[in-house]
Amino acid sequence: MKEITIVKISGNIIDEPEKMAGFLQDFANIPFPKILVHGGGKIASQLAVKLGIKPNMFQGRRITDKATLDITTMVYAGLLNKNIVAKLQSLQCNAIGLSGADANIIQSKKRAVKEVDYGFVGDVEMVDVDLILDFLKLGLTPVFNAITHNKKGQLLNTNADTIAAELAVALAPKNKVNLMYIFEKQGVLSDVKQNTVIENLNMNYYLKLKQEKIIKDGMIPKLDNCFYALKNGVQKVIIGGENLLSNNKEKYTQISL
Amino acid sequence: MKEITIVKISGNIIDEPEKMAGFLQDFANIPFPKILVHGGGKIASQLAVKLGIKPNMFQGRRITDKATLDITTMVYAGLLNKNIVAKLQSLQCNAIGLSGADANIIQSKKRAVKEVDYGFVGDVEMVDVDLILDFLKLGLTPVFNAITHNKKGQLLNTNADTIAAELAVALAPKNKVNLMYIFEKQGVLSDVKQNTVIENLNMNYYLKLKQEKIIKDGMIPKLDNCFYALKNGVQKVIIGGENLLSNNKEKYTQISL
Repeated sequence: MKEITIVKISGNIIDEPEKMAGFLQDFANIPFPKILVHGGGKIASQLAVKLGIKPNMFQGRRITDKATLDITTMVYAGLLNKNIVAKLQSLQCNAIGLSGADANIIQSKKRAVKEVDYGFVGDVEMVDVDLILDFLKLGLTPVFNAITHNKKGQLLNTNADTIAAELAVALAPKNKVNLMYIFEKQGVLSDVKQNTVIENLNMNYYLKLKQEKIIKDGMIPKLDNCFYALKNGVQKVIIGGENLLSNNKEKYTQISL
Repeated sequence: MKEITIVKISGNIIDEPEKMAGFLQDFANIPFPKILVHGGGKIASQLAVKLGIKPNMFQGRRITDKATLDITTMVYAGLLNKNIVAKLQSLQCNAIGLSGADANIIQSKKRAVKEVDYGFVGDVEMVDVDLILDFLKLGLTPVFNAITHNKKGQLLNTNADTIAAELAVALAPKNKVNLMYIFEKQGVLSDVKQNTVIENLNMNYYLKLKQEKIIKDGMIPKLDNCFYALKNGVQKVIIGGENLLSNNKEKYTQISL
């Protein structure tokens, strides 16, 4: 049983070139095998504005029409993914950029229209674990963007936190998987003003803090992904800040059931 | 010794969705192992215009400043590459989209500044043949866009015809390689108005037609790539039109030394 580290890096860090450069150096330094998943950040929204396309958001999630999907595909799978891969290559990390369409490695299904039509948004249906392990055996470090496909020729935009969780769950049965969400805060905070990091967050405490609206908005789907991963065999799930990989004294939030 | 087919599809066909759909169906139908290389077409230039960036050309080649490189990376490695991969996946062709940065599969060097500074343009230095063969062994069909990198963190724009030729040459020592350039004409024409296809073009005939200015402009670097491939062990080099893969009665140009 191999130990595999999956790191999801959020858009807020991608948006700051210096922080991102430091993070990529840290990621290059952590032991192999490892997988990187990246979100999008502001570049896609900024490009949409420049092109006169207004980004639609609903409960912190992007509604993806055709024009937005094209922009997302350009920025996530093209500009960001290839620049991240090139930077990691310069740091002696043999990265390979992957969308879900590549080698049919993550297949998803367009989200059913209920209260909201999220547009070209895909929920993960299948992860090709064997192929990921083949790539790891070749010494490659997969770098996933948030674009997937439905195997019927349609690209779909998928939440990057969810991709990280689904990859972790798919690899969990035969490997010891550590899942790390790295974002602009140091962890899950009980007091944003005081920057008080909750060092251990279990399900009961999460439900309590959610009820008290201390945990809210975008943190809810992120934490739902964390608990989903733990419930499905992932060994360790952590939420932390940009220095987590290099500074072992830095506080972070460990999630437990 | 395996027989590998490398097909380069030009931007002029990519620009016409119906022709491109027909071509991808044909490509999906040809026997495995195979490799696709695609150029860019008008979408990158159109996006540049929309964003107020003027594309610079010199002797049929794009001069690539930082803004143009970003657009090229978005369109070639993102929008086009991932949509081509998703379409091929829907046609049961297990495609994987690759830039040269991915897995350090094509490493290039920024072109030296002489009369012209081509900007972020890379000339191929190294192709990782073993990794391409590993991917083919996994049943994957590589789909290369024209973005490469210098292994120092810099993406570079490389001529797609050249990428196809360099891939063919790299694979030639241990494999029987067929290289096909597919573009908007039926082959190399001796008379454009009459659409007269030259069915066999050898080096002497090429030099004669070049002197007579019957072969000119963008056809010169394309043909130079063809002869480079043949001189370096590639078995068969063909230039043909969009129906070449499906219609065995269609005329085309076979290049020979």
